[in-house]
Amino acid sequence: MTSSVYIALDAMGGDHAPEMVIEGTEIARSQHPDARFLLFGDENRIAPYLARFRRLAEVCEIRHTEQSIAADEKPSQALRRGQESSMRLAVDAVKEGFAGVVVSAGNTGALMAISKFVLKTQPSIDRPAMVSFFPTRKGRTAVLDLGANVECSAGNLVQFAVMGAAFARIELGIDRPTVGLLNVGVEELKGNDTVRSAGEALRDVDFGFEFAGFIEGNDICEGTVDVVATDGFTGNAVLKTLEGGSSMFVDFMRQAFQSGIPSKLGYLLARPALRRMRARIDPRAYNGAVFVGLNGISVKSHGGTDGAGYANAIGVAIDLVRGRFTERIQADLEKSYVIPQEPADEAPQAAVS
Amino acid sequence: MTSSVYIALDAMGGDHAPEMVIEGTEIARSQHPDARFLLFGDENRIAPYLARFRRLAEVCEIRHTEQSIAADEKPSQALRRGQESSMRLAVDAVKEGFAGVVVSAGNTGALMAISKFVLKTQPSIDRPAMVSFFPTRKGRTAVLDLGANVECSAGNLVQFAVMGAAFARIELGIDRPTVGLLNVGVEELKGNDTVRSAGEALRDVDFGFEFAGFIEGNDICEGTVDVVATDGFTGNAVLKTLEGGSSMFVDFMRQAFQSGIPSKLGYLLARPALRRMRARIDPRAYNGAVFVGLNGISVKSHGGTDGAGYANAIGVAIDLVRGRFTERIQADLEKSYVIPQEPADEAPQAAVS
Repeated sequence: MTSSVYIALDAMGGDHAPEMVIEGTEIARSQHPDARFLLFGDENRIAPYLARFRRLAEVCEIRHTEQSIAADEKPSQALRRGQESSMRLAVDAVKEGFAGVVVSAGNTGALMAISKFVLKTQPSIDRPAMVSFFPTRKGRTAVLDLGANVECSAGNLVQFAVMGAAFARIELGIDRPTVGLLNVGVEELKGNDTVRSAGEALRDVDFGFEFAGFIEGNDICEGTVDVVATDGFTGNAVLKTLEGGSSMFVDFMRQAFQSGIPSKLGYLLARPALRRMRARIDPRAYNGAVFVGLNGISVKSHGGTDGAGYANAIGVAIDLVRGRFTERIQADLEKSYVIPQEPADEAPQAAVS
Repeated sequence: MTSSVYIALDAMGGDHAPEMVIEGTEIARSQHPDARFLLFGDENRIAPYLARFRRLAEVCEIRHTEQSIAADEKPSQALRRGQESSMRLAVDAVKEGFAGVVVSAGNTGALMAISKFVLKTQPSIDRPAMVSFFPTRKGRTAVLDLGANVECSAGNLVQFAVMGAAFARIELGIDRPTVGLLNVGVEELKGNDTVRSAGEALRDVDFGFEFAGFIEGNDICEGTVDVVATDGFTGNAVLKTLEGGSSMFVDFMRQAFQSGIPSKLGYLLARPALRRMRARIDPRAYNGAVFVGLNGISVKSHGGTDGAGYANAIGVAIDLVRGRFTERIQADLEKSYVIPQEPADEAPQAAVS
């Protein structure tokens, strides 16, 4: 029998907290009978709602906090003023060993700042990063960094690749995941100094994954690799562009089905199949971005998600604790880390789109 | 009555050249009766096919070339060895004043290298860029740079904004287009030094467009602005990611409609509406990327497009010639160019996704 996993929840984080958090936790409980939850937040709001879920209440403990972090609070402010907030105390619980992981649907910048301040960057890692799955034709691909670092060195990119591989290994259950470096072309001379230098380092060393070389933007949804490593500026732009594009596409489709009686009837007939299709790109199924590279695991849920999405983020968190995520990254890096070399003398090449 | 516009065509560029080129030119001819075409390529292949289109043949001149640039040829090689190629001679025709614009569906890297070498960068512009339209909820948004420059300074970004605005003014017919700078957040302190510095310069000077400040990836398909300026690395990644995402989405939809009799029947009923929806994101309608910032206009068509897509690229080319695109950029820059200031002292802020 496996031992219990303890999860610290920022019960006040998210657009519909704490109700959404409790509903999500109830779904997660039914899927993970060994999970135990510490709910940080306003007991007066949590307790009455939690009482509706009798079996959930048995595996939850409420840790009352007066304070919570606002959605628009600056990270620096959240750090200074939020020392008794539900988010901060939930992160503290990981640091103090009361929980194996923290999950919050609150302010992303605040969660990153607090997690980094409290948990500290793990040895051998220079910069923590944000990773999450994208939907692809073949399943799911992990992409990082999604915005924690707006400027990255070649060494950062190499570390992102290692952390992304550890993430994919646990979440996808693949022993040697494939990792690609996002670039403007696949040839070795393509891109800027940073990517080319990272590419050389990844080609030269075995970090316990298959380095697939450079990949391009279209390879993400193609599912060419299990992990895509890129700097936080590009990763953030790519993530949000794809979110915007998917949402536009779904709306265009909805409008098409509402234009006239035959279309509406057509929709009714195709509805079950279309629902299965929607499920393949349902953002809730990809909910749960992980702040990686710290001495402890911090999971960010979308603020606007519902219970099903929140349960997914909790699921990611539980997998990472069980897979000993932090230890695994450390082991990979200690085994094989090298300092990236300067790139060869060839001139940089522009993209050939 | 307007005077004729002369267009130089690389008749050998593209996966299905020269037939596709001739079919596309025939469509463009019917839409633009004043256009005249110079077809550069193998006369033995062009002439027999062109003869099938009697009215088109009357407005075309074939310029025979023995040589053509291969799809996989390196740009440097194309420059050295391709001096008598259909692509090179078509670009030369613009330089020599025989044509107002060149269109090619051939090797992108080669076209960029040859266009830059032959036409030269225009005064006041440091780096030419690649621009094209993306589909949005509200219509179309021009995005640049799509990959000509893998590393960009703040000054480059400011110039991209000016060139993109001139492009949108002509193609969208908007007097004062709105321009946004792609970043990881909308607040002034977000991003790296380069974007923040470009943001300051754009806020401080009136370049003849409305600077909308920073925008995020999701704003592209949202249609928040008419023009999105970004570095060529990010622009290329965003373009290809969205192309991959759209193609995945369309395939998922196709699979959904093929799964069982009711879905197939539903598809038949909804087909007209779904076709209108597909038309809104049809890549052919967005075909025609323009290499901007040169003393002459060079338009790149997708290599795999069909006649309808190629005709669209020719349409973009004709609009730019009629709108005196190159002169307009020059005028905007001479009117108001400033050297970007160093950014304020605040520390860079990471993304809050």
